[in-house]
Formats: sequence, C-alpha cells, structure tokens
Amino acid sequence: MTAQEAAKLAHDLVGRCEVVLLGTVDADGHPSIKALSKVETDGIKDVWCVTHIKTRRVSHLARNPDSCIYFLDAAKFQGLMLMGHTEVLTDSENRHRFWQPQFEHYFPLGKDSPDYCVLHFIGEKANFAWGLINVDFVL
Amino acid sequence: MTAQEAAKLAHDLVGRCEVVLLGTVDADGHPSIKALSKVETDGIKDVWCVTHIKTRRVSHLARNPDSCIYFLDAAKFQGLMLMGHTEVLTDSENRHRFWQPQFEHYFPLGKDSPDYCVLHFIGEKANFAWGLINVDFVL
Repeated sequence: MTAQEAAKLAHDLVGRCEVVLLGTVDADGHPSIKALSKVETDGIKDVWCVTHIKTRRVSHLARNPDSCIYFLDAAKFQGLMLMGHTEVLTDSENRHRFWQPQFEHYFPLGKDSPDYCVLHFIGEKANFAWGLINVDFVL
Repeated sequence: MTAQEAAKLAHDLVGRCEVVLLGTVDADGHPSIKALSKVETDGIKDVWCVTHIKTRRVSHLARNPDSCIYFLDAAKFQGLMLMGHTEVLTDSENRHRFWQPQFEHYFPLGKDSPDYCVLHFIGEKANFAWGLINVDFVL
C-alpha cells in the first residue's frame, strides 16, 4: 500500500472515530493514555479536544508537549497513530470557538469556566496499521 | 465511587475488550500507542499480547519497559488505564503457551517462528474513568 492510499484510509478512519486516545509522558517519563472525545479535526494533522485544566494530561503537556493520538476502529482492527505535540489553549477566543452545549455536564460554569481548556494536537508523522499493512507517512 | 466498585467495573471492561492499546516511550522520550489483540488476562493486573519481534514497540520496551495499557469502551465512554511494565518473552515455553492458530496469518512459520514473541504486561496501578467518575486504585 502506498503512503497516499494509507493517508486516504486514515482520513476515513479519523472521520468515523468519535473518541481519540491521547498519549503523553508523565514527570517520571512513564507513558500515559487517556480517551477523549474528538471535538474537531482539520484533515489528519490537527485535532482538537477539550478537557479539565486540573488533569494529569494537562500537567504532562505543560512539562512535555510531545504526544501522540491514536484513532482505533476495533471492529476492523484498523489503527492510526499520529505523532506530534499538543498545545493547551486557555484563551477566551479558542475556548469559545470549541465550546459545545453538552460540555456543560463537565463544566457547569460554561465556556468561561476557569477549569475548561482546549487541547490542540498538531501531528508531524503518521503510522497506519491494518492487519499486515503497516505504512508510515509524513503529515 | 469506591476503588472497589471501580475495580469491579474495570474487570467487566477488561472482559469485554478484544483490543488493547499499548503505550510505550521511544528512544527520544516520545509517547507511542499501538492497538494489539488481547490474548489473555489474569484479573486486571496481567495482560498478554503477541507481536512481531521487529516492531517499534519491542524496541521501545527493550530500552524502557515502562508502559501502560488502555481498555476502551467507546460506546459507553468507559476507559481503564493500567500503568506498569512489559516483559518481552521469547522463550519456547511462553511462545507455545500463548500460540493461537489464527496467528499463522502473521507468522507463517508458526509458533517457532523467530519473529513471534509474547508481551507480558504487569500492572501496578489503575485509573478508571467513566464520564465524571475518575478513580485511581492500586493493583
């Protein structure tokens, strides 16, 4: 499979995943994974999620923005790992831009809650895996 | 929710997941995730998977066995992260013990293929997350 064909399947996979797995590294250098709802994507290079600012992953990213995002279709056993870094956005413009009404369940104070922040993952390279197919490509 | 209640739900989640996400750290200290089929578990402390010996995750683990495993039920938005370390087993006894006929698709030479190895993850602590519920417990 060519990188172009893998990128096409990767786009489809990203489109149908509602949940992403964010990989970070803690202060001891130990890997950590957390499932988050996918809020928005731009192609397969930029992924936005939201989270509480007092979470482990935010403290990991403040220390070390190196991170990865994994998209999984368990039924098809298709996976895409994006490697890159994540910015923690706390400015009003971004917090308002990505706000969705259902977030109120987690942030009762709404889009101006001091606990609410946006994670912007920016991918640099990708690995698409499907059975025996395993293709690396640059984003 | 008590740690005991979380551990009960975690057991159920592990039981119904066929795929696990393995988190490792590469030589540059960057986190990496890979989906693998769950082969066997003993409670929620020990997890066995199999993989090709010439993969990224095996090279990561050879350098740094610190790892995590994530079990995801995307429909329920329930997640369990186990933190611990992973041993790469290449001895005949373990390779034969965990062999399943369908692995032949990946290892045409069978259970004695030099490319086939077993990953044994041993968890030390856990985090169970379900909506607003977030519980840490020791394994």
